[in-house]
Amino acid sequence: MRIAVDAMGGDFAPKEIVRGAVEAAKKYDCEIVLVGDEEQIRAELHGEDPASLRISIVHASEVIGMNEHPAEAVRSKKDSSVVVATRLVKDGSCDAVFSAGSTGAAVAAAQLILHRIRGVGRPAIATPMPTPDGVTLMLDSGANVDSKPEHLVQSGVMGSLYAQYVFGIEHPRVGLLNIGEEETKGNEQVKETYQLLKVEPNIHFCGNAEGRDVPKGNFDVVICDGFVGNVVLKFAEGLAKTILGLIQEEIRGAGLMAKLGALLLMPTLRRLGKRLDVREYGGAPLLGVNGCCVIGHGSSDAKSVASAIGVTVDYVNGKVLDQIRDALAKEGDSDRA
Amino acid sequence: MRIAVDAMGGDFAPKEIVRGAVEAAKKYDCEIVLVGDEEQIRAELHGEDPASLRISIVHASEVIGMNEHPAEAVRSKKDSSVVVATRLVKDGSCDAVFSAGSTGAAVAAAQLILHRIRGVGRPAIATPMPTPDGVTLMLDSGANVDSKPEHLVQSGVMGSLYAQYVFGIEHPRVGLLNIGEEETKGNEQVKETYQLLKVEPNIHFCGNAEGRDVPKGNFDVVICDGFVGNVVLKFAEGLAKTILGLIQEEIRGAGLMAKLGALLLMPTLRRLGKRLDVREYGGAPLLGVNGCCVIGHGSSDAKSVASAIGVTVDYVNGKVLDQIRDALAKEGDSDRA
Repeated sequence: MRIAVDAMGGDFAPKEIVRGAVEAAKKYDCEIVLVGDEEQIRAELHGEDPASLRISIVHASEVIGMNEHPAEAVRSKKDSSVVVATRLVKDGSCDAVFSAGSTGAAVAAAQLILHRIRGVGRPAIATPMPTPDGVTLMLDSGANVDSKPEHLVQSGVMGSLYAQYVFGIEHPRVGLLNIGEEETKGNEQVKETYQLLKVEPNIHFCGNAEGRDVPKGNFDVVICDGFVGNVVLKFAEGLAKTILGLIQEEIRGAGLMAKLGALLLMPTLRRLGKRLDVREYGGAPLLGVNGCCVIGHGSSDAKSVASAIGVTVDYVNGKVLDQIRDALAKEGDSDRA
Repeated sequence: MRIAVDAMGGDFAPKEIVRGAVEAAKKYDCEIVLVGDEEQIRAELHGEDPASLRISIVHASEVIGMNEHPAEAVRSKKDSSVVVATRLVKDGSCDAVFSAGSTGAAVAAAQLILHRIRGVGRPAIATPMPTPDGVTLMLDSGANVDSKPEHLVQSGVMGSLYAQYVFGIEHPRVGLLNIGEEETKGNEQVKETYQLLKVEPNIHFCGNAEGRDVPKGNFDVVICDGFVGNVVLKFAEGLAKTILGLIQEEIRGAGLMAKLGALLLMPTLRRLGKRLDVREYGGAPLLGVNGCCVIGHGSSDAKSVASAIGVTVDYVNGKVLDQIRDALAKEGDSDRA
C-alpha cells in the first residue's frame, strides 16, 4: 500500500508532517510518498534513511495557503503539493492521499481530480468524535453546507459502510442530528431527511440524535449538514482546550496540597486526555469521491499526522470504496426504476 | 419585584422548584409567586413560613407535560401552571415568569399571552455559555428554526442590549456563528445575515465567530439559528457530563497514589466545576416578547432554580425590555421610511 502525503499542508508543515510520516512508516505496513518541496523535505528527514523506511519524495513546487479560494487555487496551482498528491491517487501510483492543509483545497482537489462516486451528490467529511467507548462518526463535518435531504441520506449510507468495514461494527446505529427525539422536530432539511431515512434499506436508522448523544456515544454514525457539523467540531475543540487551560490555571493558583494531588493524579489525567484527544484519531476520511482521501487538522503535530496515516491505512484496508460504489449505484438504479 | 414561578415545570417539580424558590427568596430582593397545585406546593414548603419569606401561592389545576405539543397544550390547558404564571405577567401582577418545564410550552405561552415586541419577527432564547472569564450569550438556542436573516439580526440587537444592560458590558462584541472567519463563508442564511449585520447601527458587529470562539469567550454575544444553537448547547452538556463520568471512572480504576491525589485535588476540581457549571447561571432569558420570561433546564435542581431566579431578578432590574422595544421599534420605523 502506498500513501501520498501532502508534506506542505498544515500549520507546522513540512517539519511535523515529515516527522509524522517517519513515525507512521515505522508503525504501519505502508509505503509513504512525501509530496512537496524536495529540498525542505530532505532537510527534515535528516538522520533518517528514507529508502529503508520505504519513504520516497515527489517534488511539487507550489503550496496552497489556508486563505486561498479552494477551487480556484486547485485549478491554477497545478503543481501544488495537494494537487500533485491527489493526482498520484488518480493515476494509480498511490492508494490514498492525506493532507493537513486547507480542508477546502483538499476537498476541491478530491472532487476535481478524483470526481464523485456515481450516485453521490456531495462528498462528506466523516470525523471520528471521541466517546467513552470509542468514537461516533459525525458527517458531514464541513465539506458542504445547505445540503439537500438526499445528500444527508447518502452521507448516512457512506458513514454506515465506513463504520461497518473500517470499524468492524456489524449494524452501525445511525442517527440524524436534531433538536429533539420526535420525528416532527427540527428544521425543514432534517424533517424531510427523517422521512427518507425511515425507508432507506441500506442503513440501520435509529432516529434522531440530540447534541448530547454525540459525546455520549449513543450512535455509531451521526448525520448532519456540514454547517452544523463544523460548528460542533470546532466547539468541541475549543471547549477541550478551554477546560485544559482552566485546569492548569486552577492548579497554578492552588495550595501545596492540591499541587501534590495534581502530581499524583497526573498519570490518570494523562490517560483521560488520551481517551478524549482527537489527535488519537487525527484524520477524517472524505467519503463520496473515487479514491481514499483523508483530511487532517491544520494544527496537526507529528503524533496527529502519524495517527491520521493510520486512519488512512485502515480506510484502504477496509475496501469501503467498493462498498460505497455498490450501495449508491444500486440506489441510483432503483431511483430510475 | 414579584416573580411568578411555574412550580410544576421540570423533571424534579414541584420539590426542587419550591426548594429553589425558598433559597432565592432568602437571597434576592424579590417576592415569589409559586404557581401550581396548592396542596403539593404547601407540602413541599414544610417547615418554611411562606409569608415571612414573601412567598405566595396561586393555584393552577393542570400541568403541561414535556411531550405535549406546545402551542396546542397552551391553548387547551388554560389552567396549567405555565399558562397561569405567564398570565400573571400579562395582567401586571408579576414582573417576570420563570419555568423549567417544557421549553416549547414556555415559549408558546409567552408568544400567545405576552405577544412579540413590535419589530421582532421571532423571539430567541439567550443562553449564557460559561467561558474562562464569564459568559458568552448564545442566541437563539432553540426557540425557532429556519430563521430568516432579519430574525438573526434582531437576535443580535436583543442579545447586545441584554449584555449591555444586564451584564453591564458597554460595547458588547457581537459575532455571527459560522464555519470560517471570512465574510464569504457559510450557508445562505448566514451569508445574507452577515451583510445585514455589517450595516446594523445598533450593535458592535465583530464578524464571524467559529464554534471554538463560544467556550473561549472571544465574543460577548454569538448569534445563530435555533437549530444550531440547540445542538451546540446539548452537545456541551453531553460533553461535560461525559468528561465528568470519565474522570470518576479513571479515578475508581486508579492506584492508591492517584486516589490520594484526587482527594487532595478535589477542592480545585470542584472550583473548576463551578466555573464551568451551567447551573451557576441556570436560566436563559427569552428575548423578544412583551414581558420578562426566563427558561430553566428540565433537569433543574434547587440550586439551578435559585440561580435562574437570580437571572430573572437581574433581567427585570436591567430594564432591558424598554431598550429592546425602543431599538426595534425604531428599526421598524426606518424600514418603513
